[in-house]
This record gives sequence, C-alpha cells and structure tokens, in this order.
Amino acid sequence: MVKARSRPGAAATTGAVTLSSVAERAGVSLATASRVLHGSGGRAVGDALRARVFAAAQQLGYVSNGPAQALARASSSVVGLVVHDVADPYFSAIAAGAMRVARAHDLMVMVAATFRDPELELEYLARLRAQRARAVLLAGSGFTDPGYTSRLAAQIEGFERQGGRVALVGQHGVPADAVLPGHREGAAEAARYLWELGHRRIAVVCGPRALETVAHRLDGIREALRGLGADLAERDVVEADFTRSGGRTATLELLRRNPGVTAILALNDLMAAGALAALREERRAVPAEVSVIGFDDLPQAADLHPALTTVRLPLEEIGERALRLILEEEPGYAPRAVPVPATLVMRASTGPAPR
Amino acid sequence: MVKARSRPGAAATTGAVTLSSVAERAGVSLATASRVLHGSGGRAVGDALRARVFAAAQQLGYVSNGPAQALARASSSVVGLVVHDVADPYFSAIAAGAMRVARAHDLMVMVAATFRDPELELEYLARLRAQRARAVLLAGSGFTDPGYTSRLAAQIEGFERQGGRVALVGQHGVPADAVLPGHREGAAEAARYLWELGHRRIAVVCGPRALETVAHRLDGIREALRGLGADLAERDVVEADFTRSGGRTATLELLRRNPGVTAILALNDLMAAGALAALREERRAVPAEVSVIGFDDLPQAADLHPALTTVRLPLEEIGERALRLILEEEPGYAPRAVPVPATLVMRASTGPAPR
Repeated sequence: MVKARSRPGAAATTGAVTLSSVAERAGVSLATASRVLHGSGGRAVGDALRARVFAAAQQLGYVSNGPAQALARASSSVVGLVVHDVADPYFSAIAAGAMRVARAHDLMVMVAATFRDPELELEYLARLRAQRARAVLLAGSGFTDPGYTSRLAAQIEGFERQGGRVALVGQHGVPADAVLPGHREGAAEAARYLWELGHRRIAVVCGPRALETVAHRLDGIREALRGLGADLAERDVVEADFTRSGGRTATLELLRRNPGVTAILALNDLMAAGALAALREERRAVPAEVSVIGFDDLPQAADLHPALTTVRLPLEEIGERALRLILEEEPGYAPRAVPVPATLVMRASTGPAPR
Repeated sequence: MVKARSRPGAAATTGAVTLSSVAERAGVSLATASRVLHGSGGRAVGDALRARVFAAAQQLGYVSNGPAQALARASSSVVGLVVHDVADPYFSAIAAGAMRVARAHDLMVMVAATFRDPELELEYLARLRAQRARAVLLAGSGFTDPGYTSRLAAQIEGFERQGGRVALVGQHGVPADAVLPGHREGAAEAARYLWELGHRRIAVVCGPRALETVAHRLDGIREALRGLGADLAERDVVEADFTRSGGRTATLELLRRNPGVTAILALNDLMAAGALAALREERRAVPAEVSVIGFDDLPQAADLHPALTTVRLPLEEIGERALRLILEEEPGYAPRAVPVPATLVMRASTGPAPR
C-alpha cells in the first residue's frame, strides 16, 4: 500500500518549539520574544508583555536555557531500535549495523525488545515518540494480524507528523520506508536446490506463522515447489518457537509424523541448529540420510556440524541501510522500498537424496 | 578501593526542578508560583509578579506542562547499558537479562557500543548523564589503564552526585556497585582440569590483555599452574582479537611456535570456535591430539564440533543481578560486590593428553 505523505518542515523535524512560534502565540515581534527569553536588553520590555511571552513559552514548552534545554537537545539525538529479542543473533547483527551508522551521526540508540508481542511493539513506538526520538527503526518482523497493522500505521503516522522518521525491516503492510530482505526468493532458491539434489520428501520446520518473515519464507518454498509441480503438504510443515529449542522439538515431531523425510528446510539458523541436534539424537546421518538448510547465515552457521548450508542475508548491512534511509535521505513523497537479496551458501549439511 | 557515598535525596533522583525552587528564586510563595505556572486563579497575581515567576521558571528550566514535561518524565525512565559490542553474544546475553529487569520496571534501555574503545566508554557515560538516565550499567570489561580508571571514577561520581546510579560487570577499579563474574576461579578450574587429564603442554589464546576480563582469566590460569608447580611460558600465550577470527589466527600462530602443544585454553567461546576451525584446517584431531576449552558457555558452544568444554558464566543472570542492584536496592554507604561463580561444563572437546 503506497500513500503520499506530506514533507515535514524543519521545525517539525527537530521536534523543537521555535522562538517564532512563541512570539506568534504571545502576539509580539520575534525581537521582543528574544529580548525577554534570552535576556538581551530586557529592561525595554514592559512587565505585561514579558508575562505574555513567558506564559506563551511555558504553554508551548519552549526551553531557552538550563537543564531543560540540555535535555531537549539530548533527546533529539536519540534513535530508537525495536527488535524482537536482543539475544537472538539475527537482531544483534542488525543492531550492530544500525549502531555503526548511529555512531557516525553522533546519535545514541535506544533499544527495545518486544519478545514478539505486537502490543509491546506499539507501546514502545508510542514511548519512543514521547521521548522525541529522531527516528525509529522497527527491525522485527511484522505480524500478519490486520488489526495490529492498522494500529501500527496510525502510530507511525502520528510519529511522522511530529517530525520523526520511521524505517522498517521487512514489509509490515504500512506506508513507511523499508528495507526488504529477500525472504521469498531466498527460500524459493533453497527449495529448488533441494529439488535439484533429487529430494522429493521435503519438509519445513518454522517459527510462528503470525510473523511475516515466516509467512514470506514459507510462501517462497510453496511457490517454488508448485513451480516444479509439487505441493508442500500441511503435515510436512511443523511450527514451533523461532529458536534452537523450537527447531529441535519441531524436528523430532516431524520425524515422528513423516519418518521418510529426506530434506528439512529450517526457517532460521537457530532452528537449523536444533534440527541438527535432533537428527543427531535420532541417529540420522546428515546429509547422507537427511539434508538440512537454514536461513540467515548467522556467524555460527559455518561452525555447526556439519557446516550448515543456508540462505544468507547480509544482516549488518540491512541494519545500516535501514538507518541510512531515515538519517541520510530526505523523506520521499511516497515510502521507499530497498530490496536486499538473499543468496544461497552451500556447505556440508546438504547432499544428494538417498536412493 | 571503598569509599563512602552520600545518599542522594528524592529531588536529585528525578533530576527535576521543583516548584519550590522556582518560588524561592522568584521570591514568591509556593501558592503564588503554583497559581502563575499551573494557571489556577491566575487573575489574582499581578503582571510584575507573574513575570518574575515565569522568568525564574525559565531560568531554572522548570517545566510545568506540555511536551517539555513529557520529555523530562520520559528521560528519567531510561537506563543506559554500555557494552563493547552488541553483536558479541556475550553482551547480547547480558543485555537480554538487563532488559528483562528494565521491562519489569517499565523502563526503556539505551544501549551504547564502545567497540572496546575506553574513550568512547567515557563519552557515552557523559552522554547518558546529559540524558538524565536513571541508571547506567557498564557491562563491558574494564581496562587495565590507570589513567582511564581515574577518569571513569570521576564520571561515575558526577553521575551519582546528580542522583544517577551506576553498576558494573566486573572489577573496574572504581567505587561502584558491581557484579563480579568468577573469571579467575573459572579459569583456574579449567587449567587444573587439563592438568588432571595429563596435559603438561598447555597454551592460551586470549583477547587484548588491556581488558580486565582477559587479565583476570589469565591470572587464574597462571596461579593454578603455579600451584601445581608449573609455569605458563610467555611464548605459550598468544594475544589476538577477542573474536572467532582472532582465535583462529592466534591458534595458527601458536601451532607454528609450539607444535607440541596438547591443550589450548581459549579465553572466550568465540576464540574457541576459531581455535577449533584452525585445528581442523591443520588436521589436528580434537581431543585425541589437542584438547580445547573455551570460556562463557554461549548458546552455540554445545553445537560446536566437537561440543565445547567451557567455563560457564550465567550471562543473562549477570545482566539481571547488575540491574537489580541499582533499580531495586537503595545505594549503600559503600559499594557492593556480588560474586557470580563460574562453573566448568565438560563436553567433547577435551580428553586425556596423548601419550
């Protein structure tokens, strides 16, 4: 959904109340307002006029000096980063990229973790708005719930009206600048690769489908298989937590449901690590009996045993690009979308399907 | 070094300018100040008096309503978290623990990454102070440089005088509440375990010795070996980046210097992952020819090949305990130190010394 947006002016961008808005509200000239508030030649201004200027400054929250001004200045040097889980290496890599850009702009980063609770995401966005964050990067996956999406859109609109900027990682179904990781295409490529290796009994272990990232990766696999004349049966998709432990549990369940599976697509590398652990427990050789592909290419993927074939996303670059969108470029009249392609990295956890 | 501290009062804790300080500066009663600034029965106060109150409020930075007040309120609901590198899973685990506690207190977390630059650590602490953070957790290792330490102590003292609270992970040589991970004891236990397995050619790959964490872990190994009548030769300690890539490089260098080494202590798990990669490249069997021990027990340690024997630190708990110290307990008259012991976790990467 693309929607035109008004271009916020300079005053709105910093979120600061200007001297001229104080002068306007008090019904005095800019020079008078400045004399009263900045103390230059104050004697020339009568008490009644002085009171009007001070009252206007007070009402508008104008701060001319002292701790409050320091505070106001400091707050506009903050950018917010909302992630699902800071201990998840997917998000810490995105955060590292974003923090590098923030550092180059002399900004501090406020990080909020929602633990995949859509309500908390909305709450944090409101609080970052109250904090007058200059910009907010929503790095977590969106949710497939339309009610959430429309409330998110309203929050973003309010934040932008106030001069803030918002960028997203992934499609959230809302009009804001976004970096779009190639979830669909990457997952499709992984599925086609397994097919080329001769696998016909392919299954998926995935995180919660309410996460757009999961939904898009799953769509990619489904479409690729459909293109090859095959279907992904519902019983061959096992959903669990988007973690190592979720991957282990889902794989054990999958092997119970479908002992003949020869290839497993795990929808992130943490789940793939759990899948490898489960296959080890069940004494299934990887890749001789079962091939495994992950997603993300976390730093530890190459150290798994066997080294993990996975779909690589340049996570630090995604964090960098997303923050650059809102710190280094003027807002466009329509939201921008920057695609970041995924690439398949072939390692030792995949091989030809067993006879 | 233990130093008595004054107990900050309530006003200092929130950092807010009070209505009574405005009244005092304007030379009016509290009721008058309130009538002028909060608009209750304002007509009874003359223009000259009104102007005096507004001027005093302005000079002191008093904010009675509007966005500036929201801003002031919001800022005192921020805690700062200073780490070395947010993409390092050691820090993201500590951050996850700290953020859980912050969440329970309805606080937001501002995370700053110093990339192990002591100057940046001091700068961020000053900025968090300007932001009026309620509390700051310095989660990164201290540095062994005494010049840095005295400047850090001065920053912390200023921050506490202003009502802020500071907690440290590890000893930084400064008087502040701290959680002390058992770096020395854990490393000593690992060294003794290798000795018991018959290893007499033990070497260390470590991060920069300017980091206190590295210095303490190295001390623990040295003391343990000395207690067993052995010495750690300087040529058997190879220093590199505290990362996987540093561990790989240091291990390759070590094998060149001392091809007969039978056990390697890597001073964190990332370096241990690099050590295992280097040994694989050099076709040295682990643990048949060379045993490897890491430190931290990151989530991925058990998935390394072979599964890594390591010294476990409860990292999320460390982040939790440190933040609880400053959010849930009154400051003591002397800094508190909470020890968190390390425990050896035996897995498959260690075995008896080869004959």
